[in-house]
Amino acid sequence: MSDKVSRKEKFLSVFPELVSELTEVLNGYGMTKEAVEWFTNNLNYNTPGGKLNRGISVIDTYVILKGYKSVDDLAVEEYKKLAILGWSIELLQAYFLVADDMMDQSITRRGQPCWYKVPNVGEIAINDSFMLEAAIYILLKKYFKQETYYVDLLELFHEVTFQTELGQLLDLITAPEDHVDLSKFSLAKHSFIVIFKTAYYSFYLPVALAMFAAGINDEKDLKQAHDVLIPLGEYFQIQDDYLDCFGKPEDIGKIGTDIQDNKCSWVVNTALKLVTPEQRALLDENYGIKDSEKEAKVKALFNDLGIDKIYHEYEEKIATELKEKIANTDESRGFKGEVLTVFLQKIYKRSK
Amino acid sequence: MSDKVSRKEKFLSVFPELVSELTEVLNGYGMTKEAVEWFTNNLNYNTPGGKLNRGISVIDTYVILKGYKSVDDLAVEEYKKLAILGWSIELLQAYFLVADDMMDQSITRRGQPCWYKVPNVGEIAINDSFMLEAAIYILLKKYFKQETYYVDLLELFHEVTFQTELGQLLDLITAPEDHVDLSKFSLAKHSFIVIFKTAYYSFYLPVALAMFAAGINDEKDLKQAHDVLIPLGEYFQIQDDYLDCFGKPEDIGKIGTDIQDNKCSWVVNTALKLVTPEQRALLDENYGIKDSEKEAKVKALFNDLGIDKIYHEYEEKIATELKEKIANTDESRGFKGEVLTVFLQKIYKRSK
Repeated sequence: MSDKVSRKEKFLSVFPELVSELTEVLNGYGMTKEAVEWFTNNLNYNTPGGKLNRGISVIDTYVILKGYKSVDDLAVEEYKKLAILGWSIELLQAYFLVADDMMDQSITRRGQPCWYKVPNVGEIAINDSFMLEAAIYILLKKYFKQETYYVDLLELFHEVTFQTELGQLLDLITAPEDHVDLSKFSLAKHSFIVIFKTAYYSFYLPVALAMFAAGINDEKDLKQAHDVLIPLGEYFQIQDDYLDCFGKPEDIGKIGTDIQDNKCSWVVNTALKLVTPEQRALLDENYGIKDSEKEAKVKALFNDLGIDKIYHEYEEKIATELKEKIANTDESRGFKGEVLTVFLQKIYKRSK
Repeated sequence: MSDKVSRKEKFLSVFPELVSELTEVLNGYGMTKEAVEWFTNNLNYNTPGGKLNRGISVIDTYVILKGYKSVDDLAVEEYKKLAILGWSIELLQAYFLVADDMMDQSITRRGQPCWYKVPNVGEIAINDSFMLEAAIYILLKKYFKQETYYVDLLELFHEVTFQTELGQLLDLITAPEDHVDLSKFSLAKHSFIVIFKTAYYSFYLPVALAMFAAGINDEKDLKQAHDVLIPLGEYFQIQDDYLDCFGKPEDIGKIGTDIQDNKCSWVVNTALKLVTPEQRALLDENYGIKDSEKEAKVKALFNDLGIDKIYHEYEEKIATELKEKIANTDESRGFKGEVLTVFLQKIYKRSK
């Protein structure tokens, strides 16, 4: 069993306890059995099915900050508290994904029907998404109320939640799936969308949570983490956009659909900066349409424009910049550049 | 201009300031003009259009607790802070209503199309509802972070939000509009639904917020408020259900639709306790169907069962009990029974 598998299993093993603690709250209120079962299904169906990288990285970061050799050095109660912070991010993500799938009218998620597509769920999924978010604050209150950094946790979740919603808003009004208007796209908007919609909750939040738990909470240290993790999160999403178009299906485990789905992707935004009027007309005619011939024309144009090369130049440049920033980390108050290196290494030159 | 009108106007006059403070946050993030306008419209369309009783009652309660003669005795900054607590309840309600309208597939709200029915909004309304909730915590942080009771406010909003969602869940799975199954109904479920879905946020929350702001925060005092306001909120909703069926349209300002909409109302639940098997069969055949002849049959049955008389007996009994409880209020720590009397007086024997 690889280290990665066992770390994931250990993290997963906490979740059923959390479900039963959360449902105990409902039982305490005298909620009906049927409603308790509904909430249990909501939690189990929507929270644990993903890669759990965000949740697990809270624990990994904490281990580094505290100077432990491995996650096995954490006391049982200490591990559980960190895992709860990790699961709180996963609950936040579940809250967003249940809603995003409704807004995008998606069909499947993580290899199963989207929650709102499950028989008898339908629009009730909106209220269910609310309850996933509310679960975060029940857990934080139960496990962290006595901590000096309790308010910091609450404010951090509030702020990151709002930032993610802002990114989602800009994405929704810039690139509606059913209405193509490339004049609304730009690399500046792309940058805003990916930073707000993804980087804050996926990259900054896990590290900031681990920092509070480890007692490293100086504004300057939070800023050091922020100033690497936000561009790193942007790089991650640019890479994701690149792989959707240029990755091998056997590597990325899916067939990219960004072109047909009218996604405000880094690839099309970069292309828009380079096109001649004729090429722009080709894009306007063929982008964002569910038609594989039109998609092929767009892909051919992206190849003509050398997007592949531009991506690799970007990747080298950003990786070099981030390594330099990390090398200059001020560790005098206990923060560690190694935390950031681990994140960078997971992303640099990944192909899947 | 009546006192009530001027109180409402004063409260309303704060809202545009809050909108501009909230949109400043977006500008600070470098959000696009289009997205800032979208958020502004979301706030303005969904928040201030109702009766604002919940928001205003925060201020009224505070005035009583502090022993002021009128709201005009509050200093400008003091008034604004209380108004922000009031608007936070209105934002919470806006969050719920935008989502409820989608879940119920409603067409209009407060005399205008539901937000999700506005052209170009559609499913984006889900994310918009999230942003209305997030606005609460931005305002609380800006205005209350320095207060000793800041965490109490955050926890109170978290808890009441979750309670409301629980009530909504039970309502949605008990009485889906498109599937009638009266065997799922009961007065016990009705009680749970109305207490959780309405009483906590509409009755307990405004008073608890005013109590924290006035420095009256002993658990015993919060319990005194809770123990009157929760049954009072239940009474209010029972009355609402009663009026939907038995009120005069010219009094209640609308034509009741609970019977056709398959609502899990106090009226039908009371009837279900009293019916013979034949009457039950009539209910099963005619309740919850969009057909005015079937509705008339249900109404005739309700009359035969004497629901009207049962309601009036209930009303006298609960009002007497609540008056007695209020008379026994322990005011030794500064809480005042008068706060509760004001709420009871607004509700007792109202016909609209």
